[in-house]
Amino acid sequence: MARGKLITFEGGEGSGKSTQVRLLVEALSRRGLNVEASREPGGTPGAEAIRALLVAGETGRWTPLTEALLHCAARRDHVERRLWPALAAGTWVVCDRFADSTMAYQGYGHQLGRETIERLTAATLNGFGPDLTFILDIDPAVGLERAGRRSCGTSGTDHSEDRYERMILAFHHRLREGYLDIAHREPARCAVIDATLSPERINALILTKVAEIGPLIHLENC
Amino acid sequence: MARGKLITFEGGEGSGKSTQVRLLVEALSRRGLNVEASREPGGTPGAEAIRALLVAGETGRWTPLTEALLHCAARRDHVERRLWPALAAGTWVVCDRFADSTMAYQGYGHQLGRETIERLTAATLNGFGPDLTFILDIDPAVGLERAGRRSCGTSGTDHSEDRYERMILAFHHRLREGYLDIAHREPARCAVIDATLSPERINALILTKVAEIGPLIHLENC
Repeated sequence: MARGKLITFEGGEGSGKSTQVRLLVEALSRRGLNVEASREPGGTPGAEAIRALLVAGETGRWTPLTEALLHCAARRDHVERRLWPALAAGTWVVCDRFADSTMAYQGYGHQLGRETIERLTAATLNGFGPDLTFILDIDPAVGLERAGRRSCGTSGTDHSEDRYERMILAFHHRLREGYLDIAHREPARCAVIDATLSPERINALILTKVAEIGPLIHLENC
Repeated sequence: MARGKLITFEGGEGSGKSTQVRLLVEALSRRGLNVEASREPGGTPGAEAIRALLVAGETGRWTPLTEALLHCAARRDHVERRLWPALAAGTWVVCDRFADSTMAYQGYGHQLGRETIERLTAATLNGFGPDLTFILDIDPAVGLERAGRRSCGTSGTDHSEDRYERMILAFHHRLREGYLDIAHREPARCAVIDATLSPERINALILTKVAEIGPLIHLENC
């Protein structure tokens, strides 16, 4: 059986990652692939328990390096307990955030630097990484406004999870630069997509790119 | 004002660390030093929240590398939020466990290896470490029996915290070898003490050693 693929979505607040995760999972599923959605931090009971520590509380609850270490701990649990077994069984996984988020948020946004995060990621993943990564790029002012609208317009939204959104705009500009730098350094893995396009148009661009790494017969026959 | 000192206690289950932490804090306090006791994982609200994830649940709740990353996250919080400010203010800190525990438990006991833990510790501490470390050495069979007796004989003992004690004896032998190897590699920092001696005798040996790094006038005048 062919090994599954790991496809990750990255981007700042309001970039539309969760919508695109859902659309891609639906599209791959219609093409007959075994495919699951996951998210980070989270995706396993242990990683979700660590997520609860990360998303709740005040903006300054954790210092940047402690935060990066908690993300790495959650990631290792997710990778060992869920991603590796799923991929080995031939299942594709589409994940909302992965290691690039730690690089962008803690490395660039919080300015811990590339080298610190690279060292942590190397120790956490032993060279493992996504087959393909989509970076949904958006002006932070637009993205934050979209994220704010979503939070306010949805009853039952968990306001404890908007910690990052309260941070200053300068942080989000560094974050965007970080993502673009990641894409620049790894062009074979990363595709940058204009997140202001319509969800349907973005999904179509994504499916074209996925066809390059996937079982082409399935994808092209659909 | 002179910078404070960090003195750490290490050892397997039942080696008597918490008794010795208490006796040393009392002795240093009587000599007029500002001194605090702390523990790892823990010592700050954030690190104690991470500790709660580590000590509860089944033996296999976390894989060894996830566990090491959680310890590093808790340690970074403890170091940034408590140890560095305390030492800068001239306070001495006596800590029950520190980075050597991660090396001994995850590196040797769980066999992740020296290099993996060294990389994580370097990323977590940026070269910071204890001024002096006491390794309370005991045959694991004796130590586990002592730890078991303590757990059974104390009403109100939290049985959720005995996860490590349920692990197999072979693990504890690797752990002991790990501690002895750490001491062998860093003889200037580490003092190995026979944990089967009386608590008073051990405390006396410890005070002699502490006098070598401390404000000697205070210590010798007492």
